[in-house]
Order: sequence, then structure tokens, then C-alpha cells
Amino acid sequence: MAHAIVEWTDNLEGDADIHGLLSLIAAEMRDADGVFPWGGIRIRGIKLTDYVIADGKGDDAFVNITVKMGAGRPAEFKARFFAQLFEKVKAHFAELYDRRYLALSLYVEEADEAGSFKHNNIHKRFRKDS
Amino acid sequence: MAHAIVEWTDNLEGDADIHGLLSLIAAEMRDADGVFPWGGIRIRGIKLTDYVIADGKGDDAFVNITVKMGAGRPAEFKARFFAQLFEKVKAHFAELYDRRYLALSLYVEEADEAGSFKHNNIHKRFRKDS
Amino acid sequence: MAHAIVEWTDNLEGDADIHGLLSLIAAEMRDADGVFPWGGIRIRGIKLTDYVIADGKGDDAFVNITVKMGAGRPAEFKARFFAQLFEKVKAHFAELYDRRYLALSLYVEEADEAGSFKHNNIHKRFRKDS
Repeated sequence: MAHAIVEWTDNLEGDADIHGLLSLIAAEMRDADGVFPWGGIRIRGIKLTDYVIADGKGDDAFVNITVKMGAGRPAEFKARFFAQLFEKVKAHFAELYDRRYLALSLYVEEADEAGSFKHNNIHKRFRKDS
Repeated sequence: MAHAIVEWTDNLEGDADIHGLLSLIAAEMRDADGVFPWGGIRIRGIKLTDYVIADGKGDDAFVNITVKMGAGRPAEFKARFFAQLFEKVKAHFAELYDRRYLALSLYVEEADEAGSFKHNNIHKRFRKDS
Repeated sequence: MAHAIVEWTDNLEGDADIHGLLSLIAAEMRDADGVFPWGGIRIRGIKLTDYVIADGKGDDAFVNITVKMGAGRPAEFKARFFAQLFEKVKAHFAELYDRRYLALSLYVEEADEAGSFKHNNIHKRFRKDS
């Protein structure tokens, strides 16, 4: 299980590549040496159309990424992987960040095993190929 | 308080009964011997229109259910109730699961009493009837 | 960092001032003696179009506010600030609450520092002014 929810303000429309960001996050997870089984990677974007940022008086924008994954991955892996992922997120928006007011954020949440239920045949697509 | 958020990918549109799933979850909660007061049951669906699943190359779909409820219900109740609920979710999608790549998931989160604030007159509809 | 997500059922459309609620939450945060740096305040509304409330048979409505912020603010501050904020939320909907079935709720969640990553130049708008 590895979920990511990417919320983004619609004043970025046409000015930022949001689907490219979803693809980037999925690719980073796929490349993490099997820590995130491919069939469990689910990245989605949520376009926000109503918001108030700071004093509500600027053309401020934000992109907020929430990762939800099962607990149990080693702390060192998490520190390294998500710091690296966030550097890639910053690089993805670097040009925009230089010319607009923009807040980027990433939060990692872990789901308790006891409260997690899964049923997923997407994994089969990858077992078949191997 | 019992909230459920059902995220679903829009490639399921016309192929799955999502509103029926919301109704099913609400009904299971209503039938739980008063553990979930009726007036606090709030189930919503969020249609996802932008996503990357696994390697992004299949016609993969997912339905992700997040339950948020107040802390304090007994662990045995929770284990039994949510395992049973998830079996009903699987049954709801069984025909679809046999012919498409689909990930179903359910996560249970509990809200801390100290950070919870409520004001709800829907409860009155049910007190009135009794 | 101070995020708030305001989910609201679309049967409130035209009957409640949701954007005014977003502005109210942002204003309360700005007025909290610097506890919430202005540049980190990000309040958004999510209109719900598919839902089942209680027995699904009333014209019930709900507004659910989730605040996500960094951990570490004093417990007394949080208890006082969010109780006061919720009183303002209730006042904002008082007239509506008197004539419709409505559930208001507010939940406060804290993000672990270890899993939080930020890059935000909106803060500069306010440093510049000072």
C-alpha cells in the first residue's frame, strides 16, 4: 500500500504540470527497491477551486502532498526516501517557485495494520510479467 | 461520529455502483447495535479524475475507503465490525473484481477526543421517532 | 503550517456562505498571536456531491472541518483556540442550524515533524511588509 493525494490550487492550471508530478511520485515509489510493491501505488490529484491562503490577498498557490502507507518501513529508509522525493518535487516546480508565491508541502502518514483491509488484483499484472 | 470517505477512480463510472456502496456502508453502521448513532453517520464519495496507478500503463481502478470515528470503541468490536464490512465491500465488487484490475482498501482512523468538536441536530430526527 | 479542509454537502449551496467560513477560519488563525505564521495558512473547501447521511431519508446536511498542523503547539493554546474557533463556526451557521438538520464538526490533527517537508515562499510576502 502506498497512496498519495496531491491537492493543488486551480490558479496553477496551465502554469504547472500536475499530472507530471503524479507520474514523478509513482516513478520514485517504483524505483525504491521493492519497498513499495508496484500494484499498490495509487497517486491522485485533487484540484481545489475554493480556498483562502494567508491573508487571501495575493495570487498565492499551493501544492500539498499527503502520502499514506502501511506502518513498518525502517525509519532510515523513510527519512532518506521522502527527503529525496521532496527534492524532486521542488525541482519539478523550481522555475515556477522563482516567479510566483507558492507553498509546497509533503506529509507522510502511516496506517495501523489493525485498521487496514486490502483486496487488490493489480499485483497480478506484475507477477505475470516476471 | 462516524465518517467515511470513499475515493474512486472515474474509470469505474457506469461499471460500478458507487452510491450503492455508500448506502451499504451507512446501513452496516446503522445495524451495529447503536455503536454508531444514526445521526452521526456521514458517508461521502469522491470521484477521482486524475491519477497514476502502479506503472500507469493498465486500465487499473481503485476504491479507497477511509473511516474516521471517535476513539474509544472496543478493539474486539472494531476488528469484527470492519472485517465484516470489508467482506461486504468485496462482495459488492465481486463481479467487477473477476474481470478488471481493481484495488479495494479500507482504513480506519480514530480522532482524539481532545481535538474533536461537534454540533449536530440530525440526532433529533431519530429521538423524535423513538 | 496550518491547513484546513472544509467538506460540505452541496445541498447547502445557496443556503450557506461557505467561502465566508473559509475566510473566518483563516482570519482566526491570523489573529492567534503569531502561533500560525500567515504564509502557512491554507484553507480549502471541498463540495460533496454524493453522500448518504444517517438513514439517507432526510434533507440532512453537514460541514466537516479538518485542521492539519505541525505538532508542538501547547495543549492549553490548542484547547482554547479550537474551542473558540468552533464557537465562531457555530455562530456562522446559527440561523441555518435553527431551521435545517445540520451536523457541524471540527477535528484537529497534528503532523509528525519527521514526516513533514516544506518549501514556501509565501512567507516572504509578509516579511517584506514588516
